[in-house]
Amino acid sequence: MCGIVGMVGNGPVNQDIYDALLLLQHRGQDATGIATAEADAMMHIAKGQGMVREAFRTRDMRALRGETGLGHVRYATKGEASREEEAQPFYVNAPYGIVLIHNGNLTNTRELAEEMARRDRRHVNSTSDTELLVNVLAGELQETTSSELLEPEAIFEAVGRTHARIRGAYAVISVIAGHGLLAFRDPHGIRPLILGRRPGATSEEHDEWAVASESLVLENGGYEIVRDVEPGEAVFIRHDGALFMRQCAAAEGASPAACTPCAFEYVYLARPDSVMNGVSVYESRLRMGERLAATIAAHVPVEEIDVVMPIPDSSRPAAMEVARRLGIEYREGFYKNHYVGRTFIMPGQAVRRRSVRQKLNAMSLEFRGKHVLLIDDSIVRGTTSQQIIEMARRAGAASVTFASAAPPIRHPHVYGINMPSREELVAHGRTIPEIAEVLGADHLVYQEIEDLRAAIVEGSELTDLDMCCFDGRYVTGDIDEEHLAWVQASQAS
Amino acid sequence: MCGIVGMVGNGPVNQDIYDALLLLQHRGQDATGIATAEADAMMHIAKGQGMVREAFRTRDMRALRGETGLGHVRYATKGEASREEEAQPFYVNAPYGIVLIHNGNLTNTRELAEEMARRDRRHVNSTSDTELLVNVLAGELQETTSSELLEPEAIFEAVGRTHARIRGAYAVISVIAGHGLLAFRDPHGIRPLILGRRPGATSEEHDEWAVASESLVLENGGYEIVRDVEPGEAVFIRHDGALFMRQCAAAEGASPAACTPCAFEYVYLARPDSVMNGVSVYESRLRMGERLAATIAAHVPVEEIDVVMPIPDSSRPAAMEVARRLGIEYREGFYKNHYVGRTFIMPGQAVRRRSVRQKLNAMSLEFRGKHVLLIDDSIVRGTTSQQIIEMARRAGAASVTFASAAPPIRHPHVYGINMPSREELVAHGRTIPEIAEVLGADHLVYQEIEDLRAAIVEGSELTDLDMCCFDGRYVTGDIDEEHLAWVQASQAS
Amino acid sequence: MCGIVGMVGNGPVNQDIYDALLLLQHRGQDATGIATAEADAMMHIAKGQGMVREAFRTRDMRALRGETGLGHVRYATKGEASREEEAQPFYVNAPYGIVLIHNGNLTNTRELAEEMARRDRRHVNSTSDTELLVNVLAGELQETTSSELLEPEAIFEAVGRTHARIRGAYAVISVIAGHGLLAFRDPHGIRPLILGRRPGATSEEHDEWAVASESLVLENGGYEIVRDVEPGEAVFIRHDGALFMRQCAAAEGASPAACTPCAFEYVYLARPDSVMNGVSVYESRLRMGERLAATIAAHVPVEEIDVVMPIPDSSRPAAMEVARRLGIEYREGFYKNHYVGRTFIMPGQAVRRRSVRQKLNAMSLEFRGKHVLLIDDSIVRGTTSQQIIEMARRAGAASVTFASAAPPIRHPHVYGINMPSREELVAHGRTIPEIAEVLGADHLVYQEIEDLRAAIVEGSELTDLDMCCFDGRYVTGDIDEEHLAWVQASQAS
Amino acid sequence: MCGIVGMVGNGPVNQDIYDALLLLQHRGQDATGIATAEADAMMHIAKGQGMVREAFRTRDMRALRGETGLGHVRYATKGEASREEEAQPFYVNAPYGIVLIHNGNLTNTRELAEEMARRDRRHVNSTSDTELLVNVLAGELQETTSSELLEPEAIFEAVGRTHARIRGAYAVISVIAGHGLLAFRDPHGIRPLILGRRPGATSEEHDEWAVASESLVLENGGYEIVRDVEPGEAVFIRHDGALFMRQCAAAEGASPAACTPCAFEYVYLARPDSVMNGVSVYESRLRMGERLAATIAAHVPVEEIDVVMPIPDSSRPAAMEVARRLGIEYREGFYKNHYVGRTFIMPGQAVRRRSVRQKLNAMSLEFRGKHVLLIDDSIVRGTTSQQIIEMARRAGAASVTFASAAPPIRHPHVYGINMPSREELVAHGRTIPEIAEVLGADHLVYQEIEDLRAAIVEGSELTDLDMCCFDGRYVTGDIDEEHLAWVQASQAS
Repeated sequence: MCGIVGMVGNGPVNQDIYDALLLLQHRGQDATGIATAEADAMMHIAKGQGMVREAFRTRDMRALRGETGLGHVRYATKGEASREEEAQPFYVNAPYGIVLIHNGNLTNTRELAEEMARRDRRHVNSTSDTELLVNVLAGELQETTSSELLEPEAIFEAVGRTHARIRGAYAVISVIAGHGLLAFRDPHGIRPLILGRRPGATSEEHDEWAVASESLVLENGGYEIVRDVEPGEAVFIRHDGALFMRQCAAAEGASPAACTPCAFEYVYLARPDSVMNGVSVYESRLRMGERLAATIAAHVPVEEIDVVMPIPDSSRPAAMEVARRLGIEYREGFYKNHYVGRTFIMPGQAVRRRSVRQKLNAMSLEFRGKHVLLIDDSIVRGTTSQQIIEMARRAGAASVTFASAAPPIRHPHVYGINMPSREELVAHGRTIPEIAEVLGADHLVYQEIEDLRAAIVEGSELTDLDMCCFDGRYVTGDIDEEHLAWVQASQAS
Repeated sequence: MCGIVGMVGNGPVNQDIYDALLLLQHRGQDATGIATAEADAMMHIAKGQGMVREAFRTRDMRALRGETGLGHVRYATKGEASREEEAQPFYVNAPYGIVLIHNGNLTNTRELAEEMARRDRRHVNSTSDTELLVNVLAGELQETTSSELLEPEAIFEAVGRTHARIRGAYAVISVIAGHGLLAFRDPHGIRPLILGRRPGATSEEHDEWAVASESLVLENGGYEIVRDVEPGEAVFIRHDGALFMRQCAAAEGASPAACTPCAFEYVYLARPDSVMNGVSVYESRLRMGERLAATIAAHVPVEEIDVVMPIPDSSRPAAMEVARRLGIEYREGFYKNHYVGRTFIMPGQAVRRRSVRQKLNAMSLEFRGKHVLLIDDSIVRGTTSQQIIEMARRAGAASVTFASAAPPIRHPHVYGINMPSREELVAHGRTIPEIAEVLGADHLVYQEIEDLRAAIVEGSELTDLDMCCFDGRYVTGDIDEEHLAWVQASQAS
Repeated sequence: MCGIVGMVGNGPVNQDIYDALLLLQHRGQDATGIATAEADAMMHIAKGQGMVREAFRTRDMRALRGETGLGHVRYATKGEASREEEAQPFYVNAPYGIVLIHNGNLTNTRELAEEMARRDRRHVNSTSDTELLVNVLAGELQETTSSELLEPEAIFEAVGRTHARIRGAYAVISVIAGHGLLAFRDPHGIRPLILGRRPGATSEEHDEWAVASESLVLENGGYEIVRDVEPGEAVFIRHDGALFMRQCAAAEGASPAACTPCAFEYVYLARPDSVMNGVSVYESRLRMGERLAATIAAHVPVEEIDVVMPIPDSSRPAAMEVARRLGIEYREGFYKNHYVGRTFIMPGQAVRRRSVRQKLNAMSLEFRGKHVLLIDDSIVRGTTSQQIIEMARRAGAASVTFASAAPPIRHPHVYGINMPSREELVAHGRTIPEIAEVLGADHLVYQEIEDLRAAIVEGSELTDLDMCCFDGRYVTGDIDEEHLAWVQASQAS
Repeated sequence: MCGIVGMVGNGPVNQDIYDALLLLQHRGQDATGIATAEADAMMHIAKGQGMVREAFRTRDMRALRGETGLGHVRYATKGEASREEEAQPFYVNAPYGIVLIHNGNLTNTRELAEEMARRDRRHVNSTSDTELLVNVLAGELQETTSSELLEPEAIFEAVGRTHARIRGAYAVISVIAGHGLLAFRDPHGIRPLILGRRPGATSEEHDEWAVASESLVLENGGYEIVRDVEPGEAVFIRHDGALFMRQCAAAEGASPAACTPCAFEYVYLARPDSVMNGVSVYESRLRMGERLAATIAAHVPVEEIDVVMPIPDSSRPAAMEVARRLGIEYREGFYKNHYVGRTFIMPGQAVRRRSVRQKLNAMSLEFRGKHVLLIDDSIVRGTTSQQIIEMARRAGAASVTFASAAPPIRHPHVYGINMPSREELVAHGRTIPEIAEVLGADHLVYQEIEDLRAAIVEGSELTDLDMCCFDGRYVTGDIDEEHLAWVQASQAS
C-alpha cells in the first residue's frame, strides 16, 4: 500500500507535492520521499521515516528545488520499516538520470534480480521491487535511444519493453532529468493512476499537470480531472508542459476494456471522496451497504436488531446504507482515536500488545441493552473484530451481529495490498459459522463475492475486478502454488 | 488547551503515561512532556515539540525511569510553540524537588510575577503561568513544613495557601520527589480532573492510582473511576500507594455545589467517550442536538431541508440528534482528513494559506440539488464556516442552512481555551443576520445560552457552568475591562 | 579536570565564552556547557557532549542571550561521560536563580548529600558534587538574605558559610540572576582562578570582567590580568560592572600565604602560556627540566646518550632544558596526531584496544642506532610509556632511557585530577628498578619530590603545593584511609 | 586537499577505515565519507560534515558492513562545505555498481560535463569533478565489457580509456560491487598513492590489501609497504585478495621516470612520518632546513640572531635544522592550540574575524629582548605571517627575521591544493623586500626554487616535481591563461 503523486508545474512544486502527500497519507504512514528536478536537470531527493509531518524539515524542503517532481508515501511490511535502503524514490544516473516511485508489487522479482546482474550489469542495492523497476526502465531507455535528446517515441518504446519484462501490479511515476515526467500503469490497471490539468495562471505559463493515486489530490490542488491513465498506457509530460500519451502494453493485452482494478481500493484503501476508474468510491461503498443489507436480511432476524453501527471510519457509508435499507436506526457507538504512537521496548520488560481500545472506544449509552449490528469494511486476521465484539458486549450490548462489507479473505494478495500470510487469515480454512465462533459474534454475515463486484462496477464501464484475495483468481496469470509458497517463505523470514 | 495525566504505579509508568498522552492528544498537539520519579527521589524529564509520536525517542523513554510520573500535551498560542523555555513540566529543586504541570490559565500572573521576585526571591525564567504556579506551591511548601519528611497535612496546607494566592482556572498535577503525587483543582472546578484506581496485581502490590483530564484515559488504562476531584480539593498519593484527599479552598468558596466547569469541554474539547463532573460528554452533545433542533424548527422552514450533515468530527452526535428530532435524513457529506502538515516558508515565495479543503472535502453526491442543514459545534472566527458553506455550494447544494450547537462567541475566554482576540470573533459586535451574511449562509441558527446550559447540566448535580465567552460573566470575579484589555495587548505583541 | 570561565560584559558574551572554552579545551573534552543571563534576569543554558566544536549549534548560541555568562569544559570519569544529568552548569531557581560551575572535587559529598535532604530539604538529582555545591550556596544565600535585593555583604557571608560546610578543592563561578557573577576559590587555593579586566570601549560602557582557570584565556580576550583570586577569596561582579572582593574563609585558615596549588597544573594540565599563582607554567617546566637533568646525570651514564626527545606535547619545555643542561642534542622523534576518534562496538566483534600508535608515531631516522633519552611529564598507569618505549626500540633505538619530569605517582588524587585507582598506578608498591622493568626501559629516572616543588615555587611567593599523589599528604586534612577506600569502591562500581 | 584510503580485508573493514581516516584527518576536516561492499555486492555509504569524530555515529558504522571499502576526508573550498551533493564517495549503479573517491583536481571538467550529457547520456547531479570521474570510468567499463563477470583486462582497458579522457591530478580509489577494489594514479603521479599488504591471520585467510594517500596509514594498520602506485598505474584487488597491477597510461607518457609529484606534499600537506615516492617527508623537511640555512646565511647577519623558532607544527623539522646549521639556539616560543571552533553569526552583530592568537600564542620569556628568526613552511596570503610577526614584537622581540621553507607562491595551484586566487597571494606581483614590508618583518628570506626541488628529490629516483605555484610550469600541458582566468572566475562566484 502506497500513495504516489507527480507534478509538472510553472514554479516550485515542493510544497504542492508535500500537501498532496498529506492527502495520500492514509495509503501509507511508515516512510515517505520527495524528488524534484530543476530545468537544468539538477535533481534533489529527500526521504524520511514516519509520516509526512515528521519526515521533512524546512531545510529538506528548501533543497527540493524544481518545477517537476514526485512524492511517495509507504506502508511498510514487517521489518522493512526502518531500512533506509528500501525507501522510495530510487535514483539511477544512467542514462539521463531517472528517479522513480511506484505503487504496487512486482511478481517476477526473482527473475528480474537475476537478469539485472547478468544481462543488464546493473547494481541493485536493496530488495525493493522499485529499484528493480527503475533499472529495467533505465536499461530499456539505454537500448531504445542513442542521442542526448530523448524523444517521446523512444520513451514509449522503453515503457513497452518494460511492460514485457515485468509482471504484477504497478502504477509508476518517474522523472527523467532534463526531460520531464513519465507515468504508466500496469496492463490490467490493477493499481490506480489518474491525470489532471491546471491551466497556467498567465498567458506566458504552460499548462500544469499532475498524476496521482487518487482523484481527490488533483481536485484539492485545483486540477481538473482529465481521466484515469488506462491500463498499459504511458503519459509523458515534458518540462515545458507538452503532453504525450500512448498505449504501450497492447502486446500484454492491455485495453480499457481489460481493466481489472483492485477491489480493495473501493472496500478499504481509497478515500471516499475519490473517483477511480469512473467509479465513485463513496458511492460504491453505499452500494456495498445496499447489497450487504439484502444478505443480512436473508440470514439474520433483522427485526430483533435495535441499531446499526459502523466501525469507523471506512465502513461508515456502507453502514449508513445498511441502516436505511433495513429501516433500523443508525448510531455511532464507537469513537476512533486518530493519534497513534509506539510501544517502546524497555530493558527487562516484556513487550506489551497495545489493545484495540487505544484506537477505538465504545459509548455505553448506545450499547446498553441493545441488539447491535456492527458493520466493518472487511475482516483480515479477525483479532480486531474479536476485540471490538468483546468491547460491545462489555459496553452492555444484548447481542452482537457482525457484518463485513467484503467477502471472506481466504487467499494471499500479491498485488500490493499488505496482508498477513494465509495461515493468519481468520477465514482461511474456516466456514462462516466457524469464523463467527472465533470472533465471538452472535451472527456473522459476509458480503457475497458477486455482490461486491456488482456494487463496484455498477454504472461504470468496468466489467471485472481483481478480487484475488477473495476468489483466488490472479489476473496476471503468473501466480501458482510455487509462487505463493515463495511469498509465504519470504514473509516468514 | 492542555491535557494532563499523573500516575503512581507498582512498576515503571513511562509507557502508560505515553499511552495516556496519545489518548489526550486531541487536547494539544504542539508540545508534550513527561516526568517520572524513582523511589530514591531521582527525577527524569523529557520534553519535545509536536505530537507525542514525534516528540519521544526510545532513549528518552528509557531514561524516564520510575514508578510515579506525569505527562502533558499542549496547545500553544501563537508564537509560543517553539519556545522551549515554555514547555511543561516545570521543575524546582527546593524544597524537596517538585515537578508540575497544569491545564488552565492563571489570571493574576502580573501580581504573581512581581511577588515572586520580591517576596519569594524565586527565579522565574519564562512567561509561563505554570512556572509561577510551581514556584508559588514550592514557596508555600517551604513555609508550611520544616522537616525532611513531608506530611499530608503540610502539603494540604500549602495547597490551601496556593489557592489563596492564585486566581483563574487550573487543574494541577505535581510530583514531589521522594514523597508522591499531588493533584488539585481550582475552587470553581473550571478545568476537569478525575481520579481512578487500579488494584495491585498481586497481594504484595499496592493500589495504583491515576489522575487525568478525562475519564477515558482511566478507563482505557484499566482503572476504575473513583470520582472527579472536587473544586478546591487536593489529592496526595504517596509513593507507597496511600491516598489522602482534602478540601483546601473552602476559604475561596469551593464546594461541590459551587462547581462551574467550562462549557467548552462539552461543546468541543473533550472526547465524547469521557464523563466529566458526572456528565457524559456524548450524551450532553446529543442533548445539545435535541435543543438545537427545537431552535432550528422555530426559525427555519425545516420542511424544505433535505438532509442534515455534521461538520466532522465533534458535531456528529448533535447533528444525528438534530436529524432525528426534525425527522430529516442524516448523511455524512464531508470527509475529514486527519493528517496535518506544515506550510514551509521558502525564500522568495509568498506564504500561502492552506485552505480548509486540505482538512475537509465534500462528497458531491450528497449535495447535488439538495437543501442541506450543516451542524457545527461552534463558530469562532467564522472563516472555516465560510469556506465550508462555499464548499457545499460548489458541491451543488441548493441551499445551505448552518447551525451552531453553541451560542454566539462574543467575549474573550480567559480560563484556558485558546481564542483569538475579541475583534477577530465573527459574532463580536454582530447580530445573527449580520453573521449569516458574513458566512454566506442562507439561514444561520445558534443554540440559545440557556439551552446549552440545560443540555449540559441536565440530570447531573451541576447547577451552573463557566460560559464566559458566551455571556461575558467571569466566575472568578477578578476579570474586568482593564484585565481584558491587558490580555488583548499581550496577544497582539 | 575541568576548565571554567565567567564574564560580565557590556554586550553579548556568548561568542566570547565559546572562544574561551576552545582555549580551555585541553582541560576537558567530554562535555561542555554555557549559561548566560540577561539584564532582566532571564537565563539561558546549553549543554552538550563532546568537544566545544561539536556541542554547540547556531541555534544554541542564538538562544544564549545576555551580557553575563559562564562556561565549562569537562573531562569525565569512566561511565559519567554520557549521563546528561551530570553535565554542568547546574541551575537552581530559589533563591534568585543561580547557575554554577566548578573545577575541582568535593571530598565530603556523603555528608553533604545527607544534609541536603534532611536539613536543606533540597532535591539533588545527580551524583555530581557541583549540584551539591550550588545547593549549599543557594541554601546559605536563603539564610543570609531576606530581601529581593542581594547585597555583596550577604553574598560574601553565604560564601563564608559555604566554605564552612564543604571540603576539598574547588574553583567556582556562578551567576545570580538579576544580580551578577560570583566566583570563589577553596581555602587552600588548590584549583586555579584568575581575574581580568577590560576597560569599556566608550565612556558609556563600564569595565568588563572575566574570571577563568587560566590566564591565557584572559590575555587572549584582551583582558589585563588583575591577579589570581586568593585562597578562600570571593569576587562578586554586579551586572553594572561594579567589583567587590572579600576573603571569606579566614576561619578555615585561608590566606595568600596558605596557598597550596595543585602541582599537577604545572606538570601536565595547564597550558604553558598560562601564569598561575604568579608562576609561569612554561618557566616552571623549564626548571623541571633543569632539575631533572641533574638527577639524570647522577644516575645515568649521560655521555652514552646520543639524543634527547620529548613525548609531545607537554614535556617539550622540560626535554629541551634537559638537553641543554646535559649538552646533548635535542630532536623531535615522535609525531603526535591530534585527531581522536572512537572505537565502535560492533555486534559479534570483540572490542579492540586502540594502540598508542594511533596517537604517536616514531620517525625512524631519529632512532636508528641511537641511544635515546625520552622525557615525559609524568607516568601514571605506565601502559603508554611501555608502548612508547617499544615503539622507540622498533624504530631502531640502541637503548632507551626514560625520564619523568614528575616524581612517582603512588597515591590517589582526590582534588580533581582524574586518576585510576591505586592498584592501577604503575608506581604503587613498586621500586624504581621494578617500574623500569615493567616499562621495558634500559634506565628510568624520576624527578625528586623536592625538586618538583622547588622547580614550581622558585621565585614566587608560593611556599608549598598540593602534591598528594606523590607524597600522600592531603592538605585539607579530612582524607584518611576510610575515605580513600570509599573513593576506590565508588570508582570500581 | 583530500585524504583517501581503500581496503580489502578478510573481515569487516569499517573500523579500520575509520581509524585510517583519523590518521589522514590533517588532509581535510570539512567532510568525510566511507563506503563498504559486502561479498554479495550490497553496498553501504555514510557521509557527514566536519571531522571524522563528529561525522559518524554508531548506527552509521553498524550499517557499513563488508570486507571491502574505502574512505575519504575532504578540505572544502569556500562555499562547498555544506553542500551535501558534493560529498564523496560518489556512487553509480550501472554498470555493476561503482563507488569512487579521489584526491586531486581534474582540469578539463568543462569538456567532461558537456560530453557526459551528450555522449554518455549520464546524469551528473553536482559540480564535483569526482562525480564526473566515476561516470567517465563507468561509461568506459560499460564499453569495454559485456559480460556479468568483469575481468581485470577489461577493467584496465577502461582505466586506460579514462586516462585518455581526463586531465589533471588524481589519485583514485573505487569499489566495483561484486568484484573488488580498483585504484589508480594520474600519469604524472602528481597526487600520492601507496600500496600495502598484510598477510592473512590464518592459512584460510587471503592477503589483505590497503591503498592510501600516505604510508603512515599502512604502517599504523600493520601493513607492510609494497610500493607507491606508479604514475598511470592501476591496481585491482579482487574480493578474494588476488592482486592485479598494470600500467594504463603509457599513451599519456606515464612511467616511473616521468613522476612529478606535488612539492606541496613535502612542504606542508603530508605527515612527517610518511614516505612518498621513496622520499621521507621528515627527511625532506630537514633538508629544506639545511638549504634554507645557507640562503639565510647569505642574506642575513646571522650572528645577530639569538634564537631560531618554528611556527608549529609543520615547520619544526626545518627550523631545527636551520638552528643546527647556523649554530643558533633552537627554542619553541609559540604554543599552538589544536582545538578549533566556529564563529557564529548572531542577528544584529557584526561578523568578527577570529585572530591568529586563538590558534597560536607567544611565550614572552622566549621573546623578550631577543633577535628571533621565525621559520614557517610557506607563506600564502601573508595575513597569518603578519599577525605572527606582530605577536612576536608584542612579546618583546628585539627584531624579527622571517624565513619560508618554500619559495614565493606566485601562481595558481590547479592540481588539488586549495589556494586563494592570484590577487590574494602576497607574493603575486611583489618583490621580496616589498613582501617583507607587507609582513612587517625586519628581514625576509625565501627558499630558492632549485633548493626546494633538490631538498625533496635528493637521494631518490625522482628527477622532477610539480611546483606550479612557485614556477608557473604546469606539467599536464593543458593549462593556459584562458584556463587560469576561468578558474579565477569560478572561485569568485
